[in-house]
Amino acid sequence: MAKIAVIGGTGHLGKGIARRLAKAGHDVTIGSRSAERAAALGAEMGGIAGATNEEAAAGKDIVIVAVPYDSQGSTLKQIAPHVGDAIVVDTTVPLKPPKVMRVQLPDAGSAAIEAQGHLGEGIRLVTAFHNVSAHNLDSEGPVECDILVFGDDVPARNAVVEMVASMGLRGLSGGALVNSAAAEALTSILIYMNKTYQADGAGIRFTRLANAPAIP
Amino acid sequence: MAKIAVIGGTGHLGKGIARRLAKAGHDVTIGSRSAERAAALGAEMGGIAGATNEEAAAGKDIVIVAVPYDSQGSTLKQIAPHVGDAIVVDTTVPLKPPKVMRVQLPDAGSAAIEAQGHLGEGIRLVTAFHNVSAHNLDSEGPVECDILVFGDDVPARNAVVEMVASMGLRGLSGGALVNSAAAEALTSILIYMNKTYQADGAGIRFTRLANAPAIP
Repeated sequence: MAKIAVIGGTGHLGKGIARRLAKAGHDVTIGSRSAERAAALGAEMGGIAGATNEEAAAGKDIVIVAVPYDSQGSTLKQIAPHVGDAIVVDTTVPLKPPKVMRVQLPDAGSAAIEAQGHLGEGIRLVTAFHNVSAHNLDSEGPVECDILVFGDDVPARNAVVEMVASMGLRGLSGGALVNSAAAEALTSILIYMNKTYQADGAGIRFTRLANAPAIP
Repeated sequence: MAKIAVIGGTGHLGKGIARRLAKAGHDVTIGSRSAERAAALGAEMGGIAGATNEEAAAGKDIVIVAVPYDSQGSTLKQIAPHVGDAIVVDTTVPLKPPKVMRVQLPDAGSAAIEAQGHLGEGIRLVTAFHNVSAHNLDSEGPVECDILVFGDDVPARNAVVEMVASMGLRGLSGGALVNSAAAEALTSILIYMNKTYQADGAGIRFTRLANAPAIP
């Protein structure tokens, strides 16, 4: 079991991630701008600690960042001095409201590549959780979505695929960090499908994989 | 039933598309740089006409373009004067060999937006078929891949979703033309998964859609 921080853990996606990680038996700390809010929510969820973002990011095996796109840069810069050799899992999707059903990838190509710039050299960066419905993740019902994991640090990427499996989800490696663009763009398609096809949190499944983890 | 041209119909993807369209009862013409080669292949496949790209593109309801990325511009410019008010379906994925497992979207954002530039104003452009395995499409076996369809001309996009359904596949609207970037990028992930997870033509399925066409 790992020591895991969820930065932005009081948000929708962060809550769902933290809850599933705690249920899986990991040692989970929610990070928030307000330590009090984080601690209160963690206690309410049961057995989850709460701290400021900087405090939560220190001394962990894995630091998951689940904040809106417009907070990504400031949050990553804030935690970078504290993460040490932890794996940082950025979940950012570069949505630009109000046109969230349109793909609007940043000039750098992806929020993942921007994250690398914000964190600076030497930090083990992986991205994941772009496509999963926060609502479904934070419920008892089925999620029905593969979790794509991207990164250039292969051991870090594999560790995150395993962490995802511990949460009762299917994690799949999607390859290099630059490939994160595909999952980031896909989120706008899923939001579009939620509206167009009345989906209760549309997801994706990859098919015909002979040698992938089974769908839980 | 529609009059449909498949430009680049002697290539892998084009063949699979043409064969399924003909089986569905559409009036299909394969276009190629060589009219003889197109005619020979069409006869071999049974009941499919062959012509030069320009000839094939003229007088059709739908003109599907299935050529490699490095031929996309020249081919679209070649057919643009001939398509009239046909719907042009571009299938181009911006793969840049040898790194086909890495997402490398063009500066314009997508091959779809580049296609719009190549075709010029007033042509009804839709994109589709980015993610389907050419091998599976050209076989009798299951394809197990949703076909995402993108475009700003909503009636044209809907017509292509219907055409896809006539081929025994599930077509889904993915929204605006700009959203084509998501499917184009995803193809590199699928190629990566073919290798990483020993997939026989990995595909994608969208989940939890309440009101979408059934999977055939």
